[in-house]
Amino acid sequence: MSNGAQALIKTLLNNNIEVCFSNPGTSEMHFVAALDENPQMRAVLTLFEGVATGAADGYARMLNKPACTLLHLGCGLGNGLANLHNAHKAKVPVLNIVGDHATYHVKYNAQLQSDIETIARNFSGWVKTTKTPEELCDDAQDAIKSSYKREVATLILPADVSWTDGVEAKEPTQDQFNPEIDETRIHQLVQVLKSSDKVAMILGGAALQEPMLNLLSKISEVTGVQLFAEVFPTKMQRGVGRPYIERMAYFSELASVQLTNFEHIILVDSRRPVSFFAYPDKSSDLVPEGCEVHQLVDDYRNLSFALEHLCEQLNAMHIAPNLQEKSTQLLPYGKLTAKKVCQIIGGLLPENAIISDEAQTSGVMLPKYTRASPKHDLLTLTGGAIGQALPVAIGAAIACPDRTVFALTGDGSAMYTFQSLWTMAREELKVITIVFNNASYSILNIELERVGVKKVGNVAKSQLSLEKPALNFTDMARGMGVSAVRVNSCGGLKKAIRKALALNGPTVIEVMIPSSISGLKLKALPVVLNSLDKMPLKFSKIIKKQIAP
Amino acid sequence: MSNGAQALIKTLLNNNIEVCFSNPGTSEMHFVAALDENPQMRAVLTLFEGVATGAADGYARMLNKPACTLLHLGCGLGNGLANLHNAHKAKVPVLNIVGDHATYHVKYNAQLQSDIETIARNFSGWVKTTKTPEELCDDAQDAIKSSYKREVATLILPADVSWTDGVEAKEPTQDQFNPEIDETRIHQLVQVLKSSDKVAMILGGAALQEPMLNLLSKISEVTGVQLFAEVFPTKMQRGVGRPYIERMAYFSELASVQLTNFEHIILVDSRRPVSFFAYPDKSSDLVPEGCEVHQLVDDYRNLSFALEHLCEQLNAMHIAPNLQEKSTQLLPYGKLTAKKVCQIIGGLLPENAIISDEAQTSGVMLPKYTRASPKHDLLTLTGGAIGQALPVAIGAAIACPDRTVFALTGDGSAMYTFQSLWTMAREELKVITIVFNNASYSILNIELERVGVKKVGNVAKSQLSLEKPALNFTDMARGMGVSAVRVNSCGGLKKAIRKALALNGPTVIEVMIPSSISGLKLKALPVVLNSLDKMPLKFSKIIKKQIAP
Repeated sequence: MSNGAQALIKTLLNNNIEVCFSNPGTSEMHFVAALDENPQMRAVLTLFEGVATGAADGYARMLNKPACTLLHLGCGLGNGLANLHNAHKAKVPVLNIVGDHATYHVKYNAQLQSDIETIARNFSGWVKTTKTPEELCDDAQDAIKSSYKREVATLILPADVSWTDGVEAKEPTQDQFNPEIDETRIHQLVQVLKSSDKVAMILGGAALQEPMLNLLSKISEVTGVQLFAEVFPTKMQRGVGRPYIERMAYFSELASVQLTNFEHIILVDSRRPVSFFAYPDKSSDLVPEGCEVHQLVDDYRNLSFALEHLCEQLNAMHIAPNLQEKSTQLLPYGKLTAKKVCQIIGGLLPENAIISDEAQTSGVMLPKYTRASPKHDLLTLTGGAIGQALPVAIGAAIACPDRTVFALTGDGSAMYTFQSLWTMAREELKVITIVFNNASYSILNIELERVGVKKVGNVAKSQLSLEKPALNFTDMARGMGVSAVRVNSCGGLKKAIRKALALNGPTVIEVMIPSSISGLKLKALPVVLNSLDKMPLKFSKIIKKQIAP
Repeated sequence: MSNGAQALIKTLLNNNIEVCFSNPGTSEMHFVAALDENPQMRAVLTLFEGVATGAADGYARMLNKPACTLLHLGCGLGNGLANLHNAHKAKVPVLNIVGDHATYHVKYNAQLQSDIETIARNFSGWVKTTKTPEELCDDAQDAIKSSYKREVATLILPADVSWTDGVEAKEPTQDQFNPEIDETRIHQLVQVLKSSDKVAMILGGAALQEPMLNLLSKISEVTGVQLFAEVFPTKMQRGVGRPYIERMAYFSELASVQLTNFEHIILVDSRRPVSFFAYPDKSSDLVPEGCEVHQLVDDYRNLSFALEHLCEQLNAMHIAPNLQEKSTQLLPYGKLTAKKVCQIIGGLLPENAIISDEAQTSGVMLPKYTRASPKHDLLTLTGGAIGQALPVAIGAAIACPDRTVFALTGDGSAMYTFQSLWTMAREELKVITIVFNNASYSILNIELERVGVKKVGNVAKSQLSLEKPALNFTDMARGMGVSAVRVNSCGGLKKAIRKALALNGPTVIEVMIPSSISGLKLKALPVVLNSLDKMPLKFSKIIKKQIAP
């Protein structure tokens, strides 16, 4: 017979949960000790909980199954909150194991006592504190089941439940899912798609992955429906040999133009498009007036079945999907700019790469320049809480050890969870981190204007500047055992990426660039249009009119 | 007339709140813009919210008045949670301003939408979302009043409340407090103190500061009452010319020995002593069986009045307090150990220094070696959530620009909020950060044994080790613009501290030391006794018996 911690780890393994991203403390010591008896459970130590939770997110995005985290009480969970928020918004399965004080110790309100469940409810679909060893493994099974509904599940594990002997692990219970078709809805959507109305589909979640992408492209070829990806996809499969899908723009001024004139929007495992923030005198809802919004399926597990059905009804099954073709990409020369960095990344991206993207303003041109790159998966900042790219890259690299992971991060973002580098080095992960060092919270310069601030003084400007002192990410990376190089020319960057690709461990490449939009006036926003490379030219005029009347 | 943000800042300034530790995003842009019109509000940018919240804590510990933080939505508040937890446990006033989506945007459940109030309730005594511009400045006044009750207050500020025009700032309302004496209680305590019973006082909060310390020492001189400081004091005033107060030990095995045989414990602005964690077969409550626990005052604002009263009733007013005398401190030579580092810090500490202590196991000898140092203030890890020392040092340095701040941190702790260094450099703060690099979560090695883990394998051990890869804090510090040096000899450390003392900006000194207790068996715990330098020798035997029967 095992103690609680031992039985819990066995139950996790029985359920095919094999990786634990950890940052333990005293209340988790029995779980830590039990790791030795279960070497199938890979324990990945992180130096900060936000790294552990983001890594669990990245792992699950790649494998569609949860990893667990091991966190220390309420404050540990709090430190992991932002990246759990991102996972929650991304509908990614994560299973948190949060150690708690022994059940009888709680009443003493000791120094680290806090209300863990309250914190957990912020992002969890399932939360429970296991009060007795008898309940533990059943609770674990429930938590795992819940996580498979694409939720964050948080199991709070008191120390005495962990250390009590006589607990038996549970075998997994199989949840059978039988896909169902809502014939009426499919029929209705077929009518909409066959009509002369202007129809768009917004794809999210599982819809941006194979084989769904091909089915969607067939439908588009037959009906002319315009396909969009949601603004921040969980995982988007892209590149040569896959259908190209235009992403919704972050700037709602642009996104609303993308959706202009559509009479129907069909949501395919995505949510109704809304503005990221609210802005004075601008609508938060991006659906054009009078446009009808439909939803393909309520339960994403019916998605593949529903798409096949739709394809058949539209006689699209035999149609070839419109796949991205190869094109020769010329690499730029000279001094680096954000645009040139994106161009070089796009040009040198190896087959099957994974991109964890939090390049912010510096990555505006990335969609354009990776469009005709070899097949790759793009993971984005789903919940808007910065400090995600590096942790997610850790998880992706552990999930897919044979693939190269690019973590693209702004300088401001990088400083949130830069501790990630240590874990990359420790686990010898093939992650190429590119830090866009423009010495600025660049996006906020334009947000200042977007929210209607009329006069920007020096104090306000200094709140958005990272210039003084200058950050040196190369030094910081070396301090965590990661080989690093700073580059400011195209030649330097090409060389650095090629060298990094030949290595097996992690690399940091710090690219020194001017801010791509600081100083940019809102009126000039249409230049950002370049990122939406399929957008008809006429839209540019509409935007100019809308933004700068 | 002002917009909401402008009126809010004016109201804060009217209430003498003059510093804002910030990490803003889009929803806080109007607040940021309004800073320019109010240059009396010092805005201190941080690169991570945990730095901002810890800095607000440190500032308030020094000045007994709140600073405000400026945080971005629920995830920003989540990133600041751990250090707000520490402030909450320390009973320190902090005022959080948390930007939120515009009120009408909430229903769209956009990417960054989360339940901010739920997060805030975890550590706040006061929480409110201001729904209209009309309420804003009244809410701010309420929040400030609440914070002065030594609470964390969290004001959630929707973007549209911030940007709406026509809001008027409020003048401060004066809250008069008239101290009251509970004569019956004082009378009873006088009887207890005059009796032949063994009495201890446990001091916390304001009791560990002047002028309370002297009154307490007088009482001790007259009655023989033993004075203890709570295990993790908010601010403890120490050094030559002040009464020496023995601190309660972190290890409950030792703390319960400190309290052995006492028949009365009088709590003086402190809480009933409890074990930090629970351990199998050990009591969480540290009060000996049969011991009566009293409380001097219910409201800390009566503390000074009550102590004077007690002193008078005991005829102790004319008695000289027992003040720590100067003693010659010899500085050690040779290779560094944690003990020698503490000795050198104690020996070189300048008058009026502030120590922000999170040295963990490496700081075990610090109380002993700073006992006869010049007057200084000690700030400790009140809530147990690591990553506090550096942020708190920022706040203390901004509060007291004429004093030198030492931030002492373990390596594990340092990695939590190391971004602090950038703000130290930006603000040119005189903070000397000493990182104890022992390449280990050292404390957990002993905790493994304390919680009853019998067998420790390699996987478990690796979860507590920071050896692979080795962290280089000197490189990391330089990457954030802070001059840094790594030392492994006593001579090197002395030189480095002397050089740092002569500078006006921040310095990082990385001390390379062997782990002080890793590999230490619980049976050997009494060596830690050295830290409790006033503890009678006989206790050593009791402990040995208790721990290793």
